[in-house]
Amino acid sequence: MVSVVCVGIAVMDFIFAVDTLPEGQGRTFASALRETGGGPAATGAVAAARLGARTSLWARTGDDDLGGRIIADLDSLGVDTTHVRRVRGGRSSLSAVMVDGAGERAIVNYVDPGLDPDAAWLPLEDLARTQALLVHPRWAEGAAAALARAADLGLPAVLDADVAPESSAADAFALASHLLFSQDALAGFAGSADPLDGLRWARGRTANWVGVTAGGDGCYWLEDGTLRHLPGFRVPVVDTLGAGDVFHGAFAVALGEGRPVADALRFAAAAAALKCGRFGGRAGIPDRAEVDRFLAGAA
Amino acid sequence: MVSVVCVGIAVMDFIFAVDTLPEGQGRTFASALRETGGGPAATGAVAAARLGARTSLWARTGDDDLGGRIIADLDSLGVDTTHVRRVRGGRSSLSAVMVDGAGERAIVNYVDPGLDPDAAWLPLEDLARTQALLVHPRWAEGAAAALARAADLGLPAVLDADVAPESSAADAFALASHLLFSQDALAGFAGSADPLDGLRWARGRTANWVGVTAGGDGCYWLEDGTLRHLPGFRVPVVDTLGAGDVFHGAFAVALGEGRPVADALRFAAAAAALKCGRFGGRAGIPDRAEVDRFLAGAA
Repeated sequence: MVSVVCVGIAVMDFIFAVDTLPEGQGRTFASALRETGGGPAATGAVAAARLGARTSLWARTGDDDLGGRIIADLDSLGVDTTHVRRVRGGRSSLSAVMVDGAGERAIVNYVDPGLDPDAAWLPLEDLARTQALLVHPRWAEGAAAALARAADLGLPAVLDADVAPESSAADAFALASHLLFSQDALAGFAGSADPLDGLRWARGRTANWVGVTAGGDGCYWLEDGTLRHLPGFRVPVVDTLGAGDVFHGAFAVALGEGRPVADALRFAAAAAALKCGRFGGRAGIPDRAEVDRFLAGAA
Repeated sequence: MVSVVCVGIAVMDFIFAVDTLPEGQGRTFASALRETGGGPAATGAVAAARLGARTSLWARTGDDDLGGRIIADLDSLGVDTTHVRRVRGGRSSLSAVMVDGAGERAIVNYVDPGLDPDAAWLPLEDLARTQALLVHPRWAEGAAAALARAADLGLPAVLDADVAPESSAADAFALASHLLFSQDALAGFAGSADPLDGLRWARGRTANWVGVTAGGDGCYWLEDGTLRHLPGFRVPVVDTLGAGDVFHGAFAVALGEGRPVADALRFAAAAAALKCGRFGGRAGIPDRAEVDRFLAGAA
């Protein structure tokens, strides 16, 4: 069993089902509301745990009621939360997520600036007994500390190169062994929706592996300067929320198991596709046996 | 001291401060988050209590943690919550409210359809010892029951003629002695942003008093078929959230005190203006002495 560490934010998502997403000011009535644990690193950690990795999340919550619920949810899903720090007087992170009938999403995320960002307490020495690291940049201090130690150790370190409010997030790019963007984030950074344009832009920021997930279109990456493409698995799509995070978590697990990149991507794409086929957010994340069966059937 | 009953929804608002309001899908980072009690009837009740009325709120919450917080907040602000029913297994109502730098707002509201709407438990007999009723249509069953009894008793009954997801809300219009719209709601109903057009449309739905609040422009109403206008008080505007609810609550208090409509509107406009001059939602609602001083100064 491999050991995976995930670093980033843990959030509670309040998911409002709406007919149409808000467009500027006005009022929208939601027909349903679901409260579910979220946050890219935390959802990636749940995926890693479901896929059989011993998974620890390094993150912060407040010492409020919400923080307790965020941690209890992660515990129940098999994630080791020993190193989720409950910051005294801090407020736990939350997002309002509006989802329309077509599955389009608007996310409004809040992270308390008073949630002490210091990362000196992280048990970086644990990385010596870890096979892979998954990092999300929204907690910049935690991301930088963990990536630097992983680079020292030569550990596979996947950075979910996501949009973050701090422009400094890009500083972490060169520290990750695997820089995996989402389509939207890369388009935002590179100023082009074309995967090759985007990955060439990313190549200018790191000498390491660069790739981009593309939803139903699978993923793209650079190999010796050439664009490679893994088509997505065709599944009926029910709920894509967190699918990118599942992809990242599964990719980290497979790299930690020592698989070649193309294999690891195929494994990750299968996990993400299965997740999209089920409603219910984290409850829809497949386990190892399901992914293995799916891949055997698809082969 | 007059006694006022308010009927409607009690909500917890999660207010996200954002640079720009969401426009369709995408991600928005909030720079601040405030959790505050909300809901038009509940905020109207807080205003009535602050303005010196003995105020009871008739509403529903779930028996969840959020419901406890909604009630505790109302208690702390002097509202009698004896008749806020905690529905077993129900989920309390909440809204995500996005506010941009210019004070523009997008509200996403959720009311649990499982929050038993039955209104048979309402202590309607209490209305015989009440001087005014304020009703919001989002709880249609509660609104209809209270308005019908108030009509029997000849009690001043203000209906906050607001947009609601149920088209049936309009059925309550003819039952209210005072039908007070917000500008946006009336424009939506009448298909015209012109107050006279709107109020003529409203006149077609009730024989009783009809008026419309117009933000900084004060309010308009019909008197013997003629449009009357009370200009708004000029104040530096800091936070308009809930200002319309404060207007409605103050208007009900003043009607309960037996004041003529034009006086009651002036009192309500002053309370709403003072509220707009302060940040902090309900904490910014003025008390009676402040409104009296303000009106004395403005006279």
